[in-house]
Amino acid sequence: MSGLTKRQEMLIRSLRTRHGRKKSPYCLCDGLRSSSEILQCRSDLVELIVLREDKADFVLPPCPAERIVLPAGEFEDLAATVNSQGILVLASCPSFRPVTDPVPDPFVLILDRVGDPGNFGTILRTARAIGLKEVWLTKGGIDPWSDKVLRSASGAQFALTLRYAESLEDAAGALRSQGYHTMWRTLPAGGENVFRTPDVFEKSAVIFGCEATGVAELAGSRSLHIPMPGDAESLNVAQAATIVLFEYVRRITS
Amino acid sequence: MSGLTKRQEMLIRSLRTRHGRKKSPYCLCDGLRSSSEILQCRSDLVELIVLREDKADFVLPPCPAERIVLPAGEFEDLAATVNSQGILVLASCPSFRPVTDPVPDPFVLILDRVGDPGNFGTILRTARAIGLKEVWLTKGGIDPWSDKVLRSASGAQFALTLRYAESLEDAAGALRSQGYHTMWRTLPAGGENVFRTPDVFEKSAVIFGCEATGVAELAGSRSLHIPMPGDAESLNVAQAATIVLFEYVRRITS
Repeated sequence: MSGLTKRQEMLIRSLRTRHGRKKSPYCLCDGLRSSSEILQCRSDLVELIVLREDKADFVLPPCPAERIVLPAGEFEDLAATVNSQGILVLASCPSFRPVTDPVPDPFVLILDRVGDPGNFGTILRTARAIGLKEVWLTKGGIDPWSDKVLRSASGAQFALTLRYAESLEDAAGALRSQGYHTMWRTLPAGGENVFRTPDVFEKSAVIFGCEATGVAELAGSRSLHIPMPGDAESLNVAQAATIVLFEYVRRITS
Repeated sequence: MSGLTKRQEMLIRSLRTRHGRKKSPYCLCDGLRSSSEILQCRSDLVELIVLREDKADFVLPPCPAERIVLPAGEFEDLAATVNSQGILVLASCPSFRPVTDPVPDPFVLILDRVGDPGNFGTILRTARAIGLKEVWLTKGGIDPWSDKVLRSASGAQFALTLRYAESLEDAAGALRSQGYHTMWRTLPAGGENVFRTPDVFEKSAVIFGCEATGVAELAGSRSLHIPMPGDAESLNVAQAATIVLFEYVRRITS
């Protein structure tokens, strides 16, 4: 393939597979939004920018990385999506921040084994929209650097700092040692009403769980729920997280 | 194909195409949730229930419609999804309710040309979750009875009543003549803060718009927005609708 080295081409192709991504310290942004986000927030991680010839003059944030322009046919063969936007960015995955580092946010959002790329990405975008600096993850959820999640999050991964814990217990332990004492497990039913509970966002963690099994058990935690006057089953986890995160916004802006 | 008449088989296959669905007064529920919903809420519309042999003893709400069990291979060939759940329900689409009929809800949710099946379906589920009885649509949005929307809404279409207007002006005219005077256009920026405005849900309509172009212009309307302290671009329409609809829940439950 013209322009790319064999190694670059193999690397990009392997990142389109789940197995290849899992084994690799690299990730691949496919599309304008996630590419712009990494160039804006973490240009230090970028190794290579690949543009389709008709997009060679895209105005992008400055970045010292190599830039290669490919003919349309070759580009489309390389891109993961059917309707690509003419830009791919190959980059190193950011490191997770150690859970022992000081926490910058008033409360911490923890995603406990959230597994659906759409839900996970939507929650990252929402966390960013409300001004959180971090999101914490536990082992067993989706790979945050997979192409699907990069797409659904529009690259919010690069604007946020992510932390990773082996278990919810580990995350809670690290937070408690920094004075974040209240752990809220968000449950479909039962527990304290998020709209009526004053201390939801005060030196706390708000935890959303796996789509199938919910939030893991956690000693000493409190339970939070969103009231639902209709007769629907539970909300999906991205909806639930949006409601709780914007209840925080309501409190700080009202 | 054993069990099905030629007409039934052709009808089911045609409903899996967008063109076939558009031309047809029928719709096809694929999967347990949307099938259960139509059997529970609108069994009068059901024409045929098709089960995969291993699911022949599914416990379903009572329904007088014909029930056919197919061998696994034949069933999968007919089902639209790769991982089908072993049930298909063929039914007439419910009629839209005339916009001149009395409005049962305290405020009306209008989706103005919302076009993404995931967004549209999520909003219908959320409307149902908060206890609304209706959702209004305008011309130019997605077909609410397409298989994708039935899936993403988990069949909430059948629990809700839908109304259809040729334009936002027409919908607003019909509502105003029933005393619903305040029309809220939800915008990404500018307008009144949804968390600080007292009369958002009082004899009003809250309008969410097309993903690409937003809510249409509307004479005499007011503008509503969701504050966003972070530096993200606008929320997607399903997120925005969830936040506004649960602000209503907060007000009635706090």
